Amino acid sequence: MPEDVVFVTEKMLLRAGFVLAWEEGLKVIPDGEITVEDGIVSYLGPRTGRSQEGFERVIEKENSLVMPGLVNAHTHAAMTLFRGYADDMPLQEWLNDKIWPLEAKLDKKDIYWGTLLAICEMIRGGTTCFADMYFHMEEVAEACSKSGIRASLAWGLIGLDMIKGMAGLKESKSLTRNWHNADRGRITVMLGPHAPYTCPPKYLRKVIDLAAELDVPMHIHLAETAVEVQECRAEHGKTPVELMNDLGLFDYKVLAAHCVHLSPTEIEILATKGAAVAHNPGSNLKLGSGIAPLWELLQKGALVSLGTDGAASNNNLDMIEELRLSALLPKGINCDPTALPAEDALKMATINGFQSLFLEKGLGSLQAGTAADLVMINLKKPHYFPLHNPLSHIVYSAAAADVEMVMVGGRVLFENGELKTIDEEKVFFEVRQRSVRLLD
Amino acid sequence: MPEDVVFVTEKMLLRAGFVLAWEEGLKVIPDGEITVEDGIVSYLGPRTGRSQEGFERVIEKENSLVMPGLVNAHTHAAMTLFRGYADDMPLQEWLNDKIWPLEAKLDKKDIYWGTLLAICEMIRGGTTCFADMYFHMEEVAEACSKSGIRASLAWGLIGLDMIKGMAGLKESKSLTRNWHNADRGRITVMLGPHAPYTCPPKYLRKVIDLAAELDVPMHIHLAETAVEVQECRAEHGKTPVELMNDLGLFDYKVLAAHCVHLSPTEIEILATKGAAVAHNPGSNLKLGSGIAPLWELLQKGALVSLGTDGAASNNNLDMIEELRLSALLPKGINCDPTALPAEDALKMATINGFQSLFLEKGLGSLQAGTAADLVMINLKKPHYFPLHNPLSHIVYSAAAADVEMVMVGGRVLFENGELKTIDEEKVFFEVRQRSVRLLD
Repeated sequence: MPEDVVFVTEKMLLRAGFVLAWEEGLKVIPDGEITVEDGIVSYLGPRTGRSQEGFERVIEKENSLVMPGLVNAHTHAAMTLFRGYADDMPLQEWLNDKIWPLEAKLDKKDIYWGTLLAICEMIRGGTTCFADMYFHMEEVAEACSKSGIRASLAWGLIGLDMIKGMAGLKESKSLTRNWHNADRGRITVMLGPHAPYTCPPKYLRKVIDLAAELDVPMHIHLAETAVEVQECRAEHGKTPVELMNDLGLFDYKVLAAHCVHLSPTEIEILATKGAAVAHNPGSNLKLGSGIAPLWELLQKGALVSLGTDGAASNNNLDMIEELRLSALLPKGINCDPTALPAEDALKMATINGFQSLFLEKGLGSLQAGTAADLVMINLKKPHYFPLHNPLSHIVYSAAAADVEMVMVGGRVLFENGELKTIDEEKVFFEVRQRSVRLLD
Repeated sequence: MPEDVVFVTEKMLLRAGFVLAWEEGLKVIPDGEITVEDGIVSYLGPRTGRSQEGFERVIEKENSLVMPGLVNAHTHAAMTLFRGYADDMPLQEWLNDKIWPLEAKLDKKDIYWGTLLAICEMIRGGTTCFADMYFHMEEVAEACSKSGIRASLAWGLIGLDMIKGMAGLKESKSLTRNWHNADRGRITVMLGPHAPYTCPPKYLRKVIDLAAELDVPMHIHLAETAVEVQECRAEHGKTPVELMNDLGLFDYKVLAAHCVHLSPTEIEILATKGAAVAHNPGSNLKLGSGIAPLWELLQKGALVSLGTDGAASNNNLDMIEELRLSALLPKGINCDPTALPAEDALKMATINGFQSLFLEKGLGSLQAGTAADLVMINLKKPHYFPLHNPLSHIVYSAAAADVEMVMVGGRVLFENGELKTIDEEKVFFEVRQRSVRLLD
């Protein structure tokens, strides 16, 4: 079991032109101030007259905005290795001829470096936390631990072959033992039943039992494509959501990714059962899966967060892009400019993400007493002028490249254009070498 | 009439890891080279052994990509002044209570500075050319002239009141006399009949006659909302596209913005008549206008380019965002990942844009003999690794902030993070002051 690294975080004073934080709703604080001690926010509010003495670091930027870190609630980080390798293809051909043969060639260290590449991109774009589902997850955990990012990791479980399925459960058990709540709780573990169509009911029951035993949440793909729904109906006489509900899945903590094809009844089930839905608008568009009924889910009170999915189907891990898409698509498809206002979109990308990963209460609010997972945005760019409304600018105008500082649990991971915990050149080198080998 | 400024451009040699250019289709040239003389591309192809002597500037970047500049085929540049001022509102309320009252307060110099702000943002994001429709267009022309960007400018014409309508025609005539083909052809003029619902047939005929007399194209809003189509049917017994067709509009050079609500017959009309369609996916989503039948338009052979619309309804002028949306939306709404492949999207954002503005043939191809309107993209970012396919990365992964150099007609407008022709601090200052006054 890897040693729980106790990171040294500095006692910091941040002052910025605007601070955004969550209380009941969104608090927009002009000329705001945050103090951070031992990784925890100790004050957040209007600027005080306090002295800078006693703070190891002071950052004062009147043209910047501080807000909670973004949460990428569904990805397969190491799939960065396949970014741009195959696009614009029918789904089954893409999987059968392109993605699966390459995945079969991945070794442990590929996963490690591919994940680190993803983390470089995510941190640079203001993502402070992500939920991952893939394999060789110990490597993913190592990469997360090294980088300082927050993550919840699930070993993807496929139960079509029960022997392999049971091996996956064993891997998951070991991952949980080694990494759940590691690094001061920065790394947590979920079980990752891949999807209803790859995890038959008999196997899913075993997964649910293990989740209950280990007391960890589950992360599953659900109702991603129309074909999945059709085939589930044909085989089980019910839709994927109904099937999962009947199996009792939603009686436990579940993060359900995609949820594109839902009937009103299924929306009702997800909302009332408190399942966390990870909406992946970019991937759903690019793979031709469709457009999820996001506005309907939110109106029914469902807990919805946002994800990028893997970089083979997106093709970046830019959460501001997903935030924008999530705010724009419901307006367009409902022909209603009032659908999904800016605040709801920002909520999905930040605090809802932490909640969807079943992390400690209040995380992502930036309220005093919660972990300092935050990002600073440089507003001194043409697309932030004039500054009528900072919330609007973050949702409808911002770009990932505007992120100028990123902090997780009080530790600065990115500043002045540089990643502080990762040797990015080495990552680029390794990924380049490995992609050449994989395509050989 | 302003003096035609003959810009001094340097004899330049560019070498980059990749060069993208248009011939029959897209040419992707690894280790490419471009020479520029007197603003014109004199060589484009694989790297040669030529000596650097005789070139005033040499840029060699193995981790960069050179491609044609992006064309923003529909915007209202000065509306940057209203960026983020009002969002998430019903369309009529937004216009009546928010946008129109502010527009009534705009003075000439507001338009000048608002346009310059837009140009700062566009150049930084790789846009080398735009089509604008607004008012006080002489100010817009001054801003374009000063900045070195390429533009086609239309005074927005509203003919509900014939006296005002005729005054608009007079302004347009004067704009054409003063600015059409100014600055070595960098600035051109169109007539700007705002829309069928603001330009009754009697007035539109006058506009068409003037366009024929002046030999300039027309730029119009068309079929943007379902309400517009309904009301046009109620008043004229035909749809906006049918009405325009019957009036003979499409027998002239026309740039039609939006075209969201189209029947198959109307798609056929636009395609066969050779109208240029400016697709504005971001604005159409945000205002709840809907999603244009882009894939259907392209399959019928229509000439489609991309635009941001004004920053009050977008809220940025990021053409890479529009490029991405244009590639993703048809896949999502048609549930078909093969709809609108990457090359088609890049074509719309680049060479189709130049064609839609009815500029000289070949412009935007980067072929030898055409103007050097190009951008350089920095590929040394995590989201470009690994580099399986540069085209895919530009369409599905790139960001505006990756643009590291921008050239229009051989003149460098942006490099090393700095705008070369605009005092950006002064623009920020002016815009801030003016937005305070406007909201007063």
